[in-house]
Formats: sequence, structure tokens, C-alpha cells
Amino acid sequence: MSRSINLAVIPGDGIGQEVVTQGLKVLSAVLPQDVKLETKEYDFGARRYHATGETLTDADLEQLKQHDAILLGAIGDPSVPSGVLERGFLLKLRFAFDHHVNLRPSKLLPGVETPLAGEPEIDFVVVREGTEGPYTGNGGTIRTGTPHAVATEVSLNTAFGIERVVRDAYARAQARPRKKLALVHKNNVLVHAGHLWTDIFEKVGEEFPEVTTEYMHVDAATIYLVTQPERFDVIVTDNLFGDIITDLAAAISGGIGVAASGNINPSGAFPSMFEPVHGSAPDIAGQSKADPSATVLSVALLLRHLGYEAEAARIEEAVSADLAERVGGPARTTDEIGDALAVRVAG
Amino acid sequence: MSRSINLAVIPGDGIGQEVVTQGLKVLSAVLPQDVKLETKEYDFGARRYHATGETLTDADLEQLKQHDAILLGAIGDPSVPSGVLERGFLLKLRFAFDHHVNLRPSKLLPGVETPLAGEPEIDFVVVREGTEGPYTGNGGTIRTGTPHAVATEVSLNTAFGIERVVRDAYARAQARPRKKLALVHKNNVLVHAGHLWTDIFEKVGEEFPEVTTEYMHVDAATIYLVTQPERFDVIVTDNLFGDIITDLAAAISGGIGVAASGNINPSGAFPSMFEPVHGSAPDIAGQSKADPSATVLSVALLLRHLGYEAEAARIEEAVSADLAERVGGPARTTDEIGDALAVRVAG
Ligand SMILES: CC(C)[C@H](C(=O)O)[C@@H](O)C(=O)O
Ligand SMILES: CC(C)[C@H](C(=O)O)[C@@H](O)C(=O)O
Repeated sequence: MSRSINLAVIPGDGIGQEVVTQGLKVLSAVLPQDVKLETKEYDFGARRYHATGETLTDADLEQLKQHDAILLGAIGDPSVPSGVLERGFLLKLRFAFDHHVNLRPSKLLPGVETPLAGEPEIDFVVVREGTEGPYTGNGGTIRTGTPHAVATEVSLNTAFGIERVVRDAYARAQARPRKKLALVHKNNVLVHAGHLWTDIFEKVGEEFPEVTTEYMHVDAATIYLVTQPERFDVIVTDNLFGDIITDLAAAISGGIGVAASGNINPSGAFPSMFEPVHGSAPDIAGQSKADPSATVLSVALLLRHLGYEAEAARIEEAVSADLAERVGGPARTTDEIGDALAVRVAG
Repeated sequence: MSRSINLAVIPGDGIGQEVVTQGLKVLSAVLPQDVKLETKEYDFGARRYHATGETLTDADLEQLKQHDAILLGAIGDPSVPSGVLERGFLLKLRFAFDHHVNLRPSKLLPGVETPLAGEPEIDFVVVREGTEGPYTGNGGTIRTGTPHAVATEVSLNTAFGIERVVRDAYARAQARPRKKLALVHKNNVLVHAGHLWTDIFEKVGEEFPEVTTEYMHVDAATIYLVTQPERFDVIVTDNLFGDIITDLAAAISGGIGVAASGNINPSGAFPSMFEPVHGSAPDIAGQSKADPSATVLSVALLLRHLGYEAEAARIEEAVSADLAERVGGPARTTDEIGDALAVRVAG
């Protein structure tokens, strides 16, 4: 029986192309010979926007839908007004493909530098809701440009949307040795959304009696992330709080050079998308300075999602070994790191 | 000419009473003899709520209005449902007295422990908007308790509200040696509120040509706070982002044991309120373990607000010296720390 992966590849802007090239190199190297890898590249991002004014059309979505998964480099460029590509492409895709599980693991690998003192133990995963909250684009402005302007942002939260991501997080906690799950919100101030999250968190918890739970306000969570990161195993949280704490989580566990993420639709109704947490870093684009590790680790998440667990684990071990070896060594180019990882996973 | 301070004192819950006692002790010690200090204690918090069901009545507000300023210990107790005292007392007071400048300085004092590696230089102040954003209590829930529940939270942002706090922040940046101001928001996603903030930030900036500015997304700000805290001088941000980053700021600059804050109405139309950033810490209440430094530093902010600059500076020097001396020494009680500080400021 021959297997195949039909992958959509979106290099995007800035360093996107450089890191995606390495991601694909490692992917090819790790896959067993009987797995047929097909890739199709898409030109989304600043170039397409400047050329056509488009960010992501219905026809694009139809095409992307044909793939098994999507690998994205980075989207965003200073030449495009803030929000246009973020909302017109990144968020549009997450919403269109119902990527409600935004998975962001944080693991401090041996030898990797952290801004924290001592030798913190960091190994947790954030399950961020991806299709609701303050990210829905609801809101508006009246009297723009006058002293009487008023702008609103509306956070939308549904029992349906919360329950499915909370259940996903419980299942992940259940499958981990420590079986701990923390809900992060701000239910003492955002009482409407906060109580909905809290109630559902407790209700779904009854299905997972082995999972130990705690609730934490988002402000307190930022404190614990820097003072007791070992406290965390799985965190489930809303879209905006998840955005904020996963950047902090990346910072303490080696930086955004190694932070991977998946925008997952667990039902499989639409392809899931995998991307590094970092942005397009236009300041270092084209200089072969970008660390492709985050993209390569995102490829591991992609493989795990498609059922290639052994290959995913091999990539993670390779990155871990490579990072440990890097300590104190000379700086390497994007390409050199990619080559080294490809050799390791093949070996 | 005799001067006077007519102070409302709200010990509140948990460790509130213990730390406020020390704050008042240091306040009495630092004031020149010709300044008459009058204090009146109020019983807000969990006790009042359990006894009467009230959190803060119109009559209470009338009384509080008569004071020059308010000193608060901490409000909150596990016996009261989450949100009741926060919204019914803390936020109600901030809104009623139009405390739109929530001032939270972060300074890593010599000898104080930080979770960050190396010897970071931390000396910045966050100006958090206090009367708008997602804190207005707008929103609601339909179909509560059913699988079809929907909850909303509405963030309200006005040009009026943003402009006054942004101008306050520019003035503070202008008065500091480095003259740097960062706007923290999430204008690539929360575009309505974000663009209003960004536009006003740029417009008001024209009045302060000497101030160097930068814009930063809130997620990126959490990264810089742990990797380059020396980058920050003054930060201005919205109510919710300010809540989150000031807890992180407190964590990196010595912890919430030393984090002070002011809820300020710069117009003087209503009394301003000063309080430690920490909560009521019911787990250590009554054990004389709480560090009163945050409350004492809040007293310094209170004095500065009322025009007693020399006295404010004396308190800050005393706390700094006391913390430096503490290093490696035995643990001291709340009372012992208060006594030591009172001696220093009097001396
Ligand atoms: C670029 C932006 C829209 C995005 C987000 O806020 O989700 C990014 O910060 C992320 O975390 O993936
Ligand atoms: C207790 C809570 C309402 C409050 C806030 O969110 O503002 C607290 O976290 C703070 O920062 O003062």
C-alpha cells in the first residue's frame, strides 16, 4: 500500500521562504521511501497583495482545501498596512478552515538559552482557541478622526466553541504523564465570557477524573510563567490570552527561533496549517540568518497530525540534538542548520 | 501655614490590614510635624459584603469623595464568588472616581531577586488606562447553561479616554532622562480599537517632539519584557493589556511584594487611590509574613501625587536601602519591616 502527503506550501514574506525551504528539506529526508510527497507552492503574502490587491480569495480556499495539510513560513511586511495581511490572510484562513485548536508546545531543550535564571524545567503545551474571542473582527468605529470617536471590539464566545477546545485540551492532558490542565482567563473582570469558560471547564472535567485542574487569571499566569514554569503541563485558554502567553512561553523556552505551532481542525474537515510562531522578520530576510528550527519543529507537528508519529519524534530528537551541539559553536546559516537536521533525521 | 492630609484608609481583606498598618506607620514617620494627618478607616471587602450584601454604595462614594486620597490594602476573599468584589468594589471605585491613569512603576532595586538571568536593568513605568477597554462590564450571555450559550464582552474605547491617558504618558516620558514612550496594543487584530489608539498616539506625539516613540504588539511586549527589559522607559497601554503586562513587570522586578500602584485622577476632581499590585493572599493572612514594601511604596506614590515630593523620595530610598540590607538575612515579620522603614524615613 502506498501512502502520500499532498502538501500546500506557503513561504510568504521575509524569512518565510528561507525557513520553509529547510522545513521541506527535512520533511523529504525523514519520510519513508514509500510515502509519496507532493507539494504545491502558493504565493500568498505581500507580493500577491501588491500585485493584485488580493489576500485570500474563495478560489484560493477551494484549492487549499484539496491538500492534506498546509505548511506556512511567515506572512507580513512593513509595506502593507498593519492588519491587512493578518486579518485578510492569516485569520481568514484560521476561520475559514475552522482551525479551533491552536497548539503551541513549549519545551526548554538541553543547552538552549533562556532569559530565566537557574535551570528551569519547562515542558508544557498551550491549547489556544483559534476561532472565537476578540479575534472575530466584530466591532467598529464611529466619528473616526474626531475628538468624539468611539471604537468597539466585541469578543464572541460560544459554548460550542469553548467546549470542543476544552475537551481537546483535557484529552491532551490525559495523555501526558503529569495529567495537569490549567484554564487561563480573566473571569473576575470578563465575567460573561469568563463564567462560560469556567463552567464548561468544570463540566467537561467530569469526563476526565484523572486530570488535575486549576484556574488562573491571565495576569497571574504571566507571573507563574517566569517564576514557576515547571508548574505547567497543559494550558487551555482563549484566543487573545493564548496569543499573549504563547509569545511569553516561547521567550522563556528558547525564543521564537524554536517555537512551533499548529492551527488544527481535529475533525479533518479542512486541512490543518502548521507554522513557526515567529513572524517574517524583514530586518534579517535574505541573509540566511534565520533559525529554521521553529519551522522544522512545525513540520514535526504536521507529521504527528497526519499520523506519522515516529517521523515526528525523529525530527524533534534531531532538533534537540542539534541545539545541544550548537552551544558555544560558531553561528551557522539557515541552510547549514537545515542540512544538519536533514542528515540527522535520515541517519 | 499648616498643611493637612485627610486620608481614607481601606484595609480590606486577607493581608490588607497588616500591610496598611505598616504603610500608615511609615506615612506618619515621614511627614513633617506641621502636616496634620487625619485618617478614617472603611470596612469594605468580604466582611462588609457578608454582613450587608453591599460592596460600595452611593453613600460610601459620597463619603470617600471628601478625602484627599485613598490608601487600599487588598480586596478579595475565597468566600466571595469571583468577580463580585472586583467588579462591585475595585472597578466600581475606579470608574466612579474616573481613575483613568493607572500608574505602575517597575524598578529592580539593588539586591532584589529577579527570575531573569544576568543583571538586567529594569526601570520603567506603565501608564495603564483605567476606565475603558474590556473593563467596562459591557456584554452578556444568552442561553446560559445550554449547549447554545453565547457570551460577549465589549471593549469600549473613546478618543476622549485614550487621548488623556496618552498625553499623561507623554508628559511622564518627557520628564524622564531617557524620554522614551512605547505604545502597547494589538492593532493588527483589534483593528478598530487599535487604530484609534495608534492614531491618537501619533497625533499627541506631535506635541512632544523630544520623546522617542515605538509601537509594539502586546504579545511581542511580553517577549521584550523578559529578554530586553532595559528597552523600556514609559509604556502606555489599554486597561486589559496593562493588567497583564504589569503583573509580568512586577514579576521580573522583584515580585508583587514590592509592586506599587496608583489609580489616579490627575484633574483632582475625585480623590486618587493607591494600592499594592498584590492581592489579599488569604493563604498567608494573619501570619505576619506579608511584605509591606509594596504598600509603603504606594504611600510614596500617594505623597508624590499630593505634592510631597521630598517625602516620597525619602520613602523610596528607605525601601531601597532596606531591600539591599535584607539580602541573605533572616526573614522578618511584616511589623519588623514596617518598623525598620519608619525608622529610616524619620532618620
Ligand atoms: C500575526 C497575528 C495575527 C497572530 C495572532 O495574533 O494570532 C500572531 O501573533 C500569532 O500568534 O500567530
Ligand atoms: C482584581 C482585578 C479586578 C484587578 C484588575 O484586573 O485590574 C487587578 O488584577 C489589578 O491589576 O489591579
